[in-house]
Amino acid sequence: MMCQAGMSIGAAIALGFGAPGSLMAQSIKDLQMPRGPLVLKAQGSFFIGGEKSEQTRVELGGLGPGGHIAVNQMYVRFMVPQRGGRIPVVMVHGATLTGKSWETTPDGRMGWDEYFVRKGHPVYVPDQVGRGRSGFNQAVFNNVRAGSTPPDKLPNVLRFSDEVVWPNFRFGSKPDAPYPDSQFPVAAVDELSKQGLPDLSFGGLPNPNPTFKALSDLAVQLNGAVLMGHSQSGPFPLAAALLNPTAAKALVLVEPGRCPANYTDEQIKTLASIPILAVFGDHRDTSTGISTRASWQESFESCQQLISRLKAAGGQAEMLNPPDQGIHGNSHMIMQDKNNLQIADLILRWIDERVKRRGKK
Amino acid sequence: MMCQAGMSIGAAIALGFGAPGSLMAQSIKDLQMPRGPLVLKAQGSFFIGGEKSEQTRVELGGLGPGGHIAVNQMYVRFMVPQRGGRIPVVMVHGATLTGKSWETTPDGRMGWDEYFVRKGHPVYVPDQVGRGRSGFNQAVFNNVRAGSTPPDKLPNVLRFSDEVVWPNFRFGSKPDAPYPDSQFPVAAVDELSKQGLPDLSFGGLPNPNPTFKALSDLAVQLNGAVLMGHSQSGPFPLAAALLNPTAAKALVLVEPGRCPANYTDEQIKTLASIPILAVFGDHRDTSTGISTRASWQESFESCQQLISRLKAAGGQAEMLNPPDQGIHGNSHMIMQDKNNLQIADLILRWIDERVKRRGKK
Repeated sequence: MMCQAGMSIGAAIALGFGAPGSLMAQSIKDLQMPRGPLVLKAQGSFFIGGEKSEQTRVELGGLGPGGHIAVNQMYVRFMVPQRGGRIPVVMVHGATLTGKSWETTPDGRMGWDEYFVRKGHPVYVPDQVGRGRSGFNQAVFNNVRAGSTPPDKLPNVLRFSDEVVWPNFRFGSKPDAPYPDSQFPVAAVDELSKQGLPDLSFGGLPNPNPTFKALSDLAVQLNGAVLMGHSQSGPFPLAAALLNPTAAKALVLVEPGRCPANYTDEQIKTLASIPILAVFGDHRDTSTGISTRASWQESFESCQQLISRLKAAGGQAEMLNPPDQGIHGNSHMIMQDKNNLQIADLILRWIDERVKRRGKK
Repeated sequence: MMCQAGMSIGAAIALGFGAPGSLMAQSIKDLQMPRGPLVLKAQGSFFIGGEKSEQTRVELGGLGPGGHIAVNQMYVRFMVPQRGGRIPVVMVHGATLTGKSWETTPDGRMGWDEYFVRKGHPVYVPDQVGRGRSGFNQAVFNNVRAGSTPPDKLPNVLRFSDEVVWPNFRFGSKPDAPYPDSQFPVAAVDELSKQGLPDLSFGGLPNPNPTFKALSDLAVQLNGAVLMGHSQSGPFPLAAALLNPTAAKALVLVEPGRCPANYTDEQIKTLASIPILAVFGDHRDTSTGISTRASWQESFESCQQLISRLKAAGGQAEMLNPPDQGIHGNSHMIMQDKNNLQIADLILRWIDERVKRRGKK
């Protein structure tokens, strides 16, 4: 960390990964220094949304009397570049993950959050409601503990095992067997494992997920933004745009779990007014290792179908499929892959062309 | 957000707080712009510590087969100033909170994280293990849900109600009744409420709390750091320093819940080698509203006693009590108070004097 800015990246790296399986493998010296300083007009954090919940002493954990707390609020961290003036980009993470997905990569390289800022875009990175620094309603946990609510009322709490991550995130067919062309920095896969958090999204949150409205409200407060989702949150930009289509200036769906097939013609007409890009990695025909999705090709094809519907309605929806451009080996964690900035450049160019073009109309 | 850097802060503020009780009160326009750009040599995030846990399909939430996950890892976000070269400062938050405590204040002013960076210190802001973006072991929740573990094995999950926060954090004797001289930005108290998260520290984590070791390891990786704790984590810097006293270059205990009274003479001798500052706000004689602590004066006196023991052992431990300097009305959330940068300046000066002096020995 003490090296001079302006040093070559190579000279600034100390690749000190330890033995496989060690969770003490990475250290601060593995973090790579950027080539030049990052100059910010502003940075910080705030919350969007949330509601008050009145709870009993037991529901609050018993330290003080009952009363009101905030629940379901969404934390957002932001960086605004000193120079730029380009459109804000909101980056939402996927299941069992947090906003960390977009920050420093597992092997210590620059994340998309900083890279987009360096390219002139203010960047806003939320944690989904119920994860990371964003709130949720914990009352049921304490009520079950106290015996006043039956245990089967607890929400399911999801984590992905490392053994599932390897095939499902398409690093390789099984742990420690990376695809020969894999772009994921597999030597640092344990650092990705540390990004995992228990996920309450599958039964522990209000329906619809409060993150949809929070993203829409954030786009409104920003006077327009590009909404980017990933994996589980891949379709979230679509949901947010349907709540306020004028604030969602463009949607980027990065490796969405599924592009919805059940939109009404009216919804399709609304979404057709917004530039939409779906982005997928490679090796989509391989087995995921989980029962709810045979392969990511299913996800890809669901997005192809949505794109076709949107195009038929006059929309400018597109697929970014890197293998079509000779870029191979990208994983589900494409924003962390070794060529993550190359992929970012393709998305940045698309934003520049599509959002500018739209503004000129 | 669109105003020019260099504008007066007053001109850049749009104080648009809504009606009391509304959780939609704050918006991005409430965020204040700094006077000049923030120039960073580096920023990003990483993890410290953690361990692998082998879990069943049920424990992982049932989506995939059993396997290994990372648990109890500590997330750290950092900013390194382009110019500075001062000692790194690690800022740890208190109970039911996250690293957000140190970021943008509830009323949109600069947090201590950025202010210390602007004063030349690299700043590292962790989330305690079990909160925010830091991991924990969720297996018991899914086992109770499945009926294989009795409900009373669930950990207690703590939140503070707004009604408790007012007297306990010493904004006023009860909600909406601020002390006339209160430094806390009470119009934005709902934004503090949103910083609250369910807290597993009181029964849901390994013992000792893995955050102690993670802080110590972080200080080692930084080749020495100032460790700062707040409230529940107020004593954490002491615990981390006892694990590795040479890496802990100074300890700042901000409104610690308690300064331990049970250190051995050997531990006191170790801690006496490190500059230590305890920092408290005002109105400490008022009732907290919770049963475990009658008043914060108890906490203050426990630290006075520790300081006396350390001084008797040759240590340079000190109390920063702003009322002694004519500064009144500070709350428990002193890093968010309206005069937060005035308090920061006192701490910065202390670090500068004590750590430099120590380095010169």
